[in-house]
Amino acid sequence: MRLPERVLVTEVAPRDGLQNEATHLTTAQKAELIARLAAAGLRDIEATSFVHPRWIPQLADAEDLLPMLSHPAGVRYTVLIPNLRGYERAAPLGPDEVTLVCSASESHNRANLNRSTAESLAGLADVAARARADGVPLRGAISTAFWCPFEGRVPTERVVEVARAYAGMGAAEVSLADTLGTADPWHVVTLVPLIREATGLPVSLHLHDTAGMALACVVAALEVGVDHFDAALGGLGGCPYAPGAAGNLATEDLVFMLHRMGVETGVDEDRLLDAARFVRDAVGHPLHSRRLALADVDTLPPGA
Amino acid sequence: MRLPERVLVTEVAPRDGLQNEATHLTTAQKAELIARLAAAGLRDIEATSFVHPRWIPQLADAEDLLPMLSHPAGVRYTVLIPNLRGYERAAPLGPDEVTLVCSASESHNRANLNRSTAESLAGLADVAARARADGVPLRGAISTAFWCPFEGRVPTERVVEVARAYAGMGAAEVSLADTLGTADPWHVVTLVPLIREATGLPVSLHLHDTAGMALACVVAALEVGVDHFDAALGGLGGCPYAPGAAGNLATEDLVFMLHRMGVETGVDEDRLLDAARFVRDAVGHPLHSRRLALADVDTLPPGA
Repeated sequence: MRLPERVLVTEVAPRDGLQNEATHLTTAQKAELIARLAAAGLRDIEATSFVHPRWIPQLADAEDLLPMLSHPAGVRYTVLIPNLRGYERAAPLGPDEVTLVCSASESHNRANLNRSTAESLAGLADVAARARADGVPLRGAISTAFWCPFEGRVPTERVVEVARAYAGMGAAEVSLADTLGTADPWHVVTLVPLIREATGLPVSLHLHDTAGMALACVVAALEVGVDHFDAALGGLGGCPYAPGAAGNLATEDLVFMLHRMGVETGVDEDRLLDAARFVRDAVGHPLHSRRLALADVDTLPPGA
Repeated sequence: MRLPERVLVTEVAPRDGLQNEATHLTTAQKAELIARLAAAGLRDIEATSFVHPRWIPQLADAEDLLPMLSHPAGVRYTVLIPNLRGYERAAPLGPDEVTLVCSASESHNRANLNRSTAESLAGLADVAARARADGVPLRGAISTAFWCPFEGRVPTERVVEVARAYAGMGAAEVSLADTLGTADPWHVVTLVPLIREATGLPVSLHLHDTAGMALACVVAALEVGVDHFDAALGGLGGCPYAPGAAGNLATEDLVFMLHRMGVETGVDEDRLLDAARFVRDAVGHPLHSRRLALADVDTLPPGA
């Protein structure tokens, strides 16, 4: 089995995790959450999204949040940008990185971003040009890279097309998102190398855990050399425009497995669990987190 | 990624699944459950256990159950045997296979079987001699092959010792049980080849899903050539003497993943889900089954 020495975990709870919550956290609570995530050793944090507040009111405070964040050494804050208007709001605040987003499937892109993928990509090319001029690194995220809630299995060519567009825009990495959470390990090992080949870029994975296969997909992804995963504290999340999608792969479940496999992440598990308890109190409902459940009932054997 | 064409799934819900349930199913309900499992295409079913009824009253009807089972072509019923007394009860009923059981960790064996592992193995050697004379195939199951709830990580030498004892008794296969459900994929890929080497026997896996890593461990196991897994319908189960252990890997979750990966199991998913609904009604509580949850809310995309 092929294992990297170290995996980079991008924490997406402040963005993907909170965007679907009925309870809107205050900006101060979000800043506190992000500070706790950084204190737990996470070095790459998707802090918020510059989508129109009408669509995602949970993240309407993006402009207020970014200036509240402290900048510990080595911590990078990325923000999700769907279009030029979003970039224009974000740019003056100096994000460390910009994550572009577009779906591979037409109908999910329309549901999620209210335009065709071609229109999205044209707009993102403008964003990318501006970001390059501003010296801001780019990551290209492909939603519904595996399954679309409306169209079923997404043809590989569609994913390749969006990935190539990102490569042409100067993205440093392509993130394949299993928005619905039904990707299987074989789908992962077949798709990832194709995207890498088509773009020449490193590929990271953004997994949801709807079918309970997210960790199995991580193992498969490690096999094909992936060493960068998104995850959300407490397994928060779910796309408002992907009916039935469950939360993200929980950061603490991912980190627990990787550490047990001897793979470093730089994350302190105890601090991470403290942060998970904080966010559980803030959102006011139980989390989809195996690791937190185990910690709460103290059932791990000695040394585990 | 290395994948077998076909995986054998041993269904253990009638034994491991029911032994921990507060609601005791009637013998007729168990026979109905087993008939539904066979009708769903499962060809290897652990029907019951011949432990002392004082310890596992849920399975006290073993002698009554076996004669009630029909024998569709290709279906094999195995029974769990902890000692000679158990074999003497089972033998007249003509089980197709006998699964011997002993823990790798001393303290779990004492909690579970009320004797030392050396005493267990001595008794099982007598069972094996009788079974060989009777022409009944043997499978050797090692409980707590990964972690012990009392002792922590179980030293490999202990697992090798029990596995070698089974090989000496003429077992056709060694089953490594993650009784506690905290094994990680790396633990799997390191332990399985060692046991295969030490015994010359094929190795199968019996996984619980306490830490949410069971399917990830399946992927790892496929990588090292394992093509035989235990699973329990509805994720039922948990060991009464392994505090904190969650249920078994759910058969429908395992089969769903394998089928999506292009691996055959011979199991009909719809019939399996019907059987899961039947057992859910019988035990009277929700099941730990992602696949059933997805089916119940009908959230899978077209073609998934």
